[in-house]
Amino acid sequence: MHDLQLAAGGRLRHLITLAGMPRATIERLLERAEAMRHDSQGGARPLDLLEGRTLINLFFEPSTRTRTSFDLAAQRLGALVINFDIERSSTVKGESLLDTIHTLEAMHCDAFVVRHKESGTPETIARNLRSNAAVLNAGDGNHAHPTQGLLDALTLRRRVEDFSKLSIVICGDIRHSRVARSDVDVLRTLGVRDLRLCAPPELLPQSDAAEFAQCSFVHTLDQAIIGCDAAIMLRLQKERMEAAAIPSEADYFARYGLDAARLARAKPGCVVMHPGPINRNVEIADEVADGAQSLILEQVSNGVFARMAVLAELLERR
Amino acid sequence: MHDLQLAAGGRLRHLITLAGMPRATIERLLERAEAMRHDSQGGARPLDLLEGRTLINLFFEPSTRTRTSFDLAAQRLGALVINFDIERSSTVKGESLLDTIHTLEAMHCDAFVVRHKESGTPETIARNLRSNAAVLNAGDGNHAHPTQGLLDALTLRRRVEDFSKLSIVICGDIRHSRVARSDVDVLRTLGVRDLRLCAPPELLPQSDAAEFAQCSFVHTLDQAIIGCDAAIMLRLQKERMEAAAIPSEADYFARYGLDAARLARAKPGCVVMHPGPINRNVEIADEVADGAQSLILEQVSNGVFARMAVLAELLERR
Amino acid sequence: MHDLQLAAGGRLRHLITLAGMPRATIERLLERAEAMRHDSQGGARPLDLLEGRTLINLFFEPSTRTRTSFDLAAQRLGALVINFDIERSSTVKGESLLDTIHTLEAMHCDAFVVRHKESGTPETIARNLRSNAAVLNAGDGNHAHPTQGLLDALTLRRRVEDFSKLSIVICGDIRHSRVARSDVDVLRTLGVRDLRLCAPPELLPQSDAAEFAQCSFVHTLDQAIIGCDAAIMLRLQKERMEAAAIPSEADYFARYGLDAARLARAKPGCVVMHPGPINRNVEIADEVADGAQSLILEQVSNGVFARMAVLAELLERR
Repeated sequence: MHDLQLAAGGRLRHLITLAGMPRATIERLLERAEAMRHDSQGGARPLDLLEGRTLINLFFEPSTRTRTSFDLAAQRLGALVINFDIERSSTVKGESLLDTIHTLEAMHCDAFVVRHKESGTPETIARNLRSNAAVLNAGDGNHAHPTQGLLDALTLRRRVEDFSKLSIVICGDIRHSRVARSDVDVLRTLGVRDLRLCAPPELLPQSDAAEFAQCSFVHTLDQAIIGCDAAIMLRLQKERMEAAAIPSEADYFARYGLDAARLARAKPGCVVMHPGPINRNVEIADEVADGAQSLILEQVSNGVFARMAVLAELLERR
Repeated sequence: MHDLQLAAGGRLRHLITLAGMPRATIERLLERAEAMRHDSQGGARPLDLLEGRTLINLFFEPSTRTRTSFDLAAQRLGALVINFDIERSSTVKGESLLDTIHTLEAMHCDAFVVRHKESGTPETIARNLRSNAAVLNAGDGNHAHPTQGLLDALTLRRRVEDFSKLSIVICGDIRHSRVARSDVDVLRTLGVRDLRLCAPPELLPQSDAAEFAQCSFVHTLDQAIIGCDAAIMLRLQKERMEAAAIPSEADYFARYGLDAARLARAKPGCVVMHPGPINRNVEIADEVADGAQSLILEQVSNGVFARMAVLAELLERR
Repeated sequence: MHDLQLAAGGRLRHLITLAGMPRATIERLLERAEAMRHDSQGGARPLDLLEGRTLINLFFEPSTRTRTSFDLAAQRLGALVINFDIERSSTVKGESLLDTIHTLEAMHCDAFVVRHKESGTPETIARNLRSNAAVLNAGDGNHAHPTQGLLDALTLRRRVEDFSKLSIVICGDIRHSRVARSDVDVLRTLGVRDLRLCAPPELLPQSDAAEFAQCSFVHTLDQAIIGCDAAIMLRLQKERMEAAAIPSEADYFARYGLDAARLARAKPGCVVMHPGPINRNVEIADEVADGAQSLILEQVSNGVFARMAVLAELLERR
């Protein structure tokens, strides 16, 4: 993957995963995201770095939130954005995904933002391109969601000076979560040493899974959150509750939901994060979601800047 | 509401309703709409007043016509427009409307154009914003459709000098019509004294309803139209015919449709308006809809300029 | 039609069909398409010829590929593009097509790109316009697909010097194909003399059909391809197989599919074209579709430039 994502000289060619991405590359992207916030005055001023570039949003799973974030990021940099409507596209007519990609490349499209329920789809596309287009993974199966990892790191970075001193818990359906994987990837690379995974037993990955190496596994949130600086709560896919032997949302909330009482077990000022959209009073109590320690909306803001940074890195002419 | 819509100094903050809006504000908006027509050479020349601004179209009811009008108005002023696809959005995933709004605000969106079948939704959104974003009501339940009221006033204003001398009939399902309410609001404020409401008895509001104060109530169009300067015909929601004890479209047309014979009972040159889309030969006969006295397409043109004026007033940097 | 498409002085007013279009007009459009490729550096540089112009994509049949091509062509020339969502539009509310068109004209829209399953719809729209807007036929029934004809001619023109010396086979469901008709129109006008139509007997048009005058009719591809310089393979509408007494895709491929063995019967270097999306191993074998003689993706690229040329010709201010 490393060879696929990074060109000679360390320039980013595609963004498929944060696993194995050098710390210098990650820090460069985070610096650039901060610069984007500054240069665009928080999103109010359009830049023209990507004028003449065309980006295609290819979402095979619905996700207005992430799609809109990419759309805004690209347009605010001056790119032309086409939201390719999958349900009505010629995939309906039996055209294969790669034929669709090659067709769009032939129309001089410069980047594909891809979300797909199957892990590996963005990589497959990147390996089969016929042009210099870039592929941005916007979430594939349970594999990776690298811009989410970057925006989460960006959000924490604005609050802390030294990642190596942080204790962080990630709580929810770790096993099936691409957010958890990308967060673990980026946080370990940035130096976090105390990274705790908390989930119902059936939704924890194998404790010897290489992808979660160096993480500790904890079964109760009451315990996992003790002394934490940050709690990253994952979205519950309701169809997974049964597999986890959890009979109801109320039951999930009672065991894995973050309310004020549980949050009080963490360090004072422990920040609360969630990739959104949240299920209120399932993953997080209203009082916490809307409370002073919640960074949920800041994550959303940072998402646009992180995506602007990645797009500029991938598409800027040089 | 007054305090919600108008900032200190009289600047418009949101556009939720025309009820209670000061005459000076309305006239300023209409003047500006005329200036928009002039400066954009009828829509041919893009302006850049809103460069860097982002507008979100949030239509919870389908309405390509009004959505397109807002879309064109905003883009011709240089704004970036996102058409937020409600059916596929995370409202599907159970995210509440306000969480969606706060998420979009966090992405630095400057305005929300909202259409919703429930009266009050735009106001609820405006009262719960966390940023300086503006809310534009594009039609909520049977409550208000303020840009329609403005464009109707703009259309009449180009033809008449003195609103106080006009006789105007509004005909159709008054009870359930947000267009009727916004038209009555703006026309009364501009000085119209002879405002007649005509509808099947079951579709007239209570004659003591404060919102229609100073209007007269007439049951037959034959009578209501006598001596009128303008006839505003409302769209028939077909599912309302039964409630009105009207067995068929032909029956509605026979009693409330505007044909040449009925129009001849009005003043010579009486203008004919309709918010569109029209049901031909239900509300208006072809001969009238396409005749010299019809202003229906002029209303559509004016809709873009009225919306440009409102957007400029709400979003222009100062 | 001639009077409808061409203004006095030979300027293009609409693009409905290539039938009867003067050779000089076609060559001017092809020259301009080449200039578009050059001036836009292959699509990388936006031009501003159409700044302030508004184009509406009105697709009553799904076609992401053609719609995206028009969308990119128009936006890269600086136009504002509205993709009018037919399924949710007021055609749902019973508004007639012409009322929708007049409404959009009243919003100052400059061009309508129309795809419709019924032949003649773009012409009907063009004949009933109330403004100076232009109509571009993006495919109507089995009547015409003129930009496809132009892009196919553009693709061949870059390879050959003298159309009059070419032998070309068009293979597939000729009877129902608007692509075949527009290709025949443009190729005959450019001087091709040996134009062969190959189809299952039930899918060949009458051999005395005026629209295919001067073409030869051949029942087997084995024979039709002998000595050809170009093979244009048509897309198989699967619902037509039954009518053609073809029991399966494999059977179609065996008789009318283009594989390497069949291609070897053509002239060396015979180019292979297809309007896309292709059904792999139904109309064309993988080895041919992806082979050195395939121009399929070049057609896609040329489609954007051909559409830019047509749009500039129709909408450029003068």
